[in-house]
Amino acid sequence: MTISRREFSRLGALGFAAHAFSTVPVLGQSEQKKIGYCVIGLGRIADHHMRGIAQSSTSTVTALVSGHRDKAEKIAAQYGVPKISIYSYEDMDRIRENKAIDAVIVCLPNSMHAEYTSRSAKAGKHVLCEKPMAISVAECEAMISACKAANVKLMIAYRLHYEPLTLKTIKMIRDGAIGKVEAIDSANGFNIAPNEWRSTHALGGGGPLMDVGVYSLNATRYLTGEEPVAFTAVATTPDHDGRFQGVEENLAWTMKFPSGAVASCTTTYGASMPGYYKVFGSKGWLEVDEFGYEGLHLTANYRNDRNAPATKIDERNPEPDPKQFTRQIDHFSRCIRENRTPDTPGEEGLKDMQHIQSIYKAAGITLG
Amino acid sequence: MTISRREFSRLGALGFAAHAFSTVPVLGQSEQKKIGYCVIGLGRIADHHMRGIAQSSTSTVTALVSGHRDKAEKIAAQYGVPKISIYSYEDMDRIRENKAIDAVIVCLPNSMHAEYTSRSAKAGKHVLCEKPMAISVAECEAMISACKAANVKLMIAYRLHYEPLTLKTIKMIRDGAIGKVEAIDSANGFNIAPNEWRSTHALGGGGPLMDVGVYSLNATRYLTGEEPVAFTAVATTPDHDGRFQGVEENLAWTMKFPSGAVASCTTTYGASMPGYYKVFGSKGWLEVDEFGYEGLHLTANYRNDRNAPATKIDERNPEPDPKQFTRQIDHFSRCIRENRTPDTPGEEGLKDMQHIQSIYKAAGITLG
Repeated sequence: MTISRREFSRLGALGFAAHAFSTVPVLGQSEQKKIGYCVIGLGRIADHHMRGIAQSSTSTVTALVSGHRDKAEKIAAQYGVPKISIYSYEDMDRIRENKAIDAVIVCLPNSMHAEYTSRSAKAGKHVLCEKPMAISVAECEAMISACKAANVKLMIAYRLHYEPLTLKTIKMIRDGAIGKVEAIDSANGFNIAPNEWRSTHALGGGGPLMDVGVYSLNATRYLTGEEPVAFTAVATTPDHDGRFQGVEENLAWTMKFPSGAVASCTTTYGASMPGYYKVFGSKGWLEVDEFGYEGLHLTANYRNDRNAPATKIDERNPEPDPKQFTRQIDHFSRCIRENRTPDTPGEEGLKDMQHIQSIYKAAGITLG
Repeated sequence: MTISRREFSRLGALGFAAHAFSTVPVLGQSEQKKIGYCVIGLGRIADHHMRGIAQSSTSTVTALVSGHRDKAEKIAAQYGVPKISIYSYEDMDRIRENKAIDAVIVCLPNSMHAEYTSRSAKAGKHVLCEKPMAISVAECEAMISACKAANVKLMIAYRLHYEPLTLKTIKMIRDGAIGKVEAIDSANGFNIAPNEWRSTHALGGGGPLMDVGVYSLNATRYLTGEEPVAFTAVATTPDHDGRFQGVEENLAWTMKFPSGAVASCTTTYGASMPGYYKVFGSKGWLEVDEFGYEGLHLTANYRNDRNAPATKIDERNPEPDPKQFTRQIDHFSRCIRENRTPDTPGEEGLKDMQHIQSIYKAAGITLG
C-alpha cells in the first residue's frame, strides 16, 4: 500500500476509514453475538438487504415492520423471524421493548426516512438508512440530532463506499495514477415504470437526481476528495405518457471543485441510462461502469509522462449481488460492536442533500 | 431505407442531404476534370486534407499557401504542385489569376479563418474552411456575406457529417430505434502540448470548447435534429504548469432542447479525454466512441417495449484515415461541379458559433 499518511487521513475524513483497506480478518466474529436488525419497509431494496444479511457472519434479521401482514409473515418465515417480532407502522415504537433488535434498516420511500429514523432512534435502536438520506437538508439535520440525542449510531447506506473496486479506484486517484483530476463525467438513470412511488413528489421528494443522480454526485465527491462549490443545472419533464407527478424527468448539471476540476452529470427517469463515471486526469483517464449491485467494471489508461508507455487496466468485481449488502451490513455491525462511527454517517448524507438542494436551486426547482 | 419523407426533409435541413444516404455512384466522375484545391496553411490538419485528396477521384491539390517556402516546396513536390503555384500569405491574393485553383481549404489557426476565407472569396475561389468556422459570430456572418457577394460556395469541414457510421446513427434515431431522445452525454478533449497556438487566445480565439468541444455541441444538434435553447456552463483554468494563455482549460456545460431533451458535455485541454457521445432514449441507448479520423465505434441497446427482447448493435467503421477527408472533399467537389449547396454550409458553422458564444457567456467568459 503506497498511500501516504496524509492521504490516508483525508480518506478517513471522506468516510473511507483505515479498516476499509485492511485485509486483517475480524477474528472470532462468528463466536460473537450477531447484531439483530429490524427491517422497516419490505420493498425491493429490503430484499437486497435481507439477502445480504443472510450471508453475513455479523448480522441477522430479527424483526420486520410492514403494512402488509401476509407479506411480512412469509418473509419472516424465510428469515426465521418470530411472528411476535412483526410490527405495523402504527405499533412499531414497541420495537423499544424487543431486546433482539439492536438496529433498524430504513427501506421506506424517501419522504418517510426522517420520521422512521427519528422514531427508531427514540426507541433506542441504531439506524442504517437508505439513500437519499431524506428529502431536505432540515430533515437530514433533524435525523442526525435525533440519533445523537438518543446516543445511537446513524449510517447512510452508501454501499459503494464498501465495494472493493470503488475503493481501489479512489486509491488509484489518491496515489496520483491519473495525475491531477481535471474533469469528471457521470450519468445514472433508468426508465421508470408507471405508478412507482418514486415518480411522485409526495413520496420521492424529488425525481431521478434524488434517487439515482445522487450516485453520480456522491462519486464526484469520493473521487476528488473535495466538496463542489458551484453548480449549474437544467431540468425538463417532457412527460410523454403521464408518468410524472411533480418530479423532474431529466436533469443535467455541472459542478466546480476547489482544485479547478469540473464535473458534468446527467440523470433521468425517462430513458435507459446505465450508470458510469469517467475521470479525466493530467496523466490519463479511468472509468467505472455500473453503480449497480454487481458487475462493476474498471478500465483505465494512463502514463507517467507524455512519452512513457501506457498502463492499461481492465478489471471487474466478480462478486454477485447481494455481496455489496453483506459488506455494508458487516461494516455497520462492527461499528456497533466496537462503538465506532460508520464510514458513511448521517453527515455524509447531509452533504449530498445540501448539494442536491443547490443543484435543484440552479435548475429552478424548490425542494419541500 | 425506412426514413420518412418528412424526416428526410428534416435531415436535409440539418445538413444531411438526400445524397448523403444515396448509394448510387456518381458516374463518369473519373472522366471529369478534377476540382483543383489551394491549401492555405500547412499544419497537421492540412496533411490530413492533402492525403485525403490524394485518394480522391474528384479532387486534386494544385496550389499551396505557406509562410515556410522550404516546407511548401517539399510538400509541393510530394503532391505534384508546380513551384509557381506556391504562395506566401502576402501574395496569396494572386491566386485569382491561377486557373488551376477552383477552391481553397483554410487550414489556419482559428483567428485567421475569417480573413483568409474572405480574401479567397474575393479572389473568386470556393472555400472549404476548417472548424471552428471562426472565433466570433460577427466573423462567421462576414464570411457568409463575403462568399455570397463573390458568388462562391462556402463549406465548413464538419467531416463527420460525411462519415457512414455517424449517418447510420442519425438515421437510427430519426427512425425511432431508441425512442424519444431524453438525454445526451458527450465529452471530447485532450492534453495539450506546451506552446501550441491553440492554447493562446490570440490564435485559438477560445480554448477546448472552440477547438474540440464543438464536436460534442455539433453532435447534440445532429443527433436531436434540434437547436439548443438554454445553456449553463462552468469553466476553470487551474493551469498547473503555465500552458494556458487566456483560454479555458476545462469546461462543463448543459443544454436544453425544445423537445425536452437535455445534454451534459465536457471538454478539456488539461487531460486525456477520448471523445464519445451517449444518447439515452425512451426505448434504449446508443453510443459512438471517437470523434477522430478513424475507429468510430457504435454500440446500442434498445427494445420496442419494456418486455421485448433487446436489439444490440456493435459496429465499427473500418475505414482508415484519411478516408473521412476523401469523403468530405468529394462532397464539396460535387457541390462545386453540380452547383449545389454543401450539406455543411457557412450557416452550419454560424449556428455552432452562436451556441459557443452562449456557452461561454454562461461560463462568464466573453469572446473576442
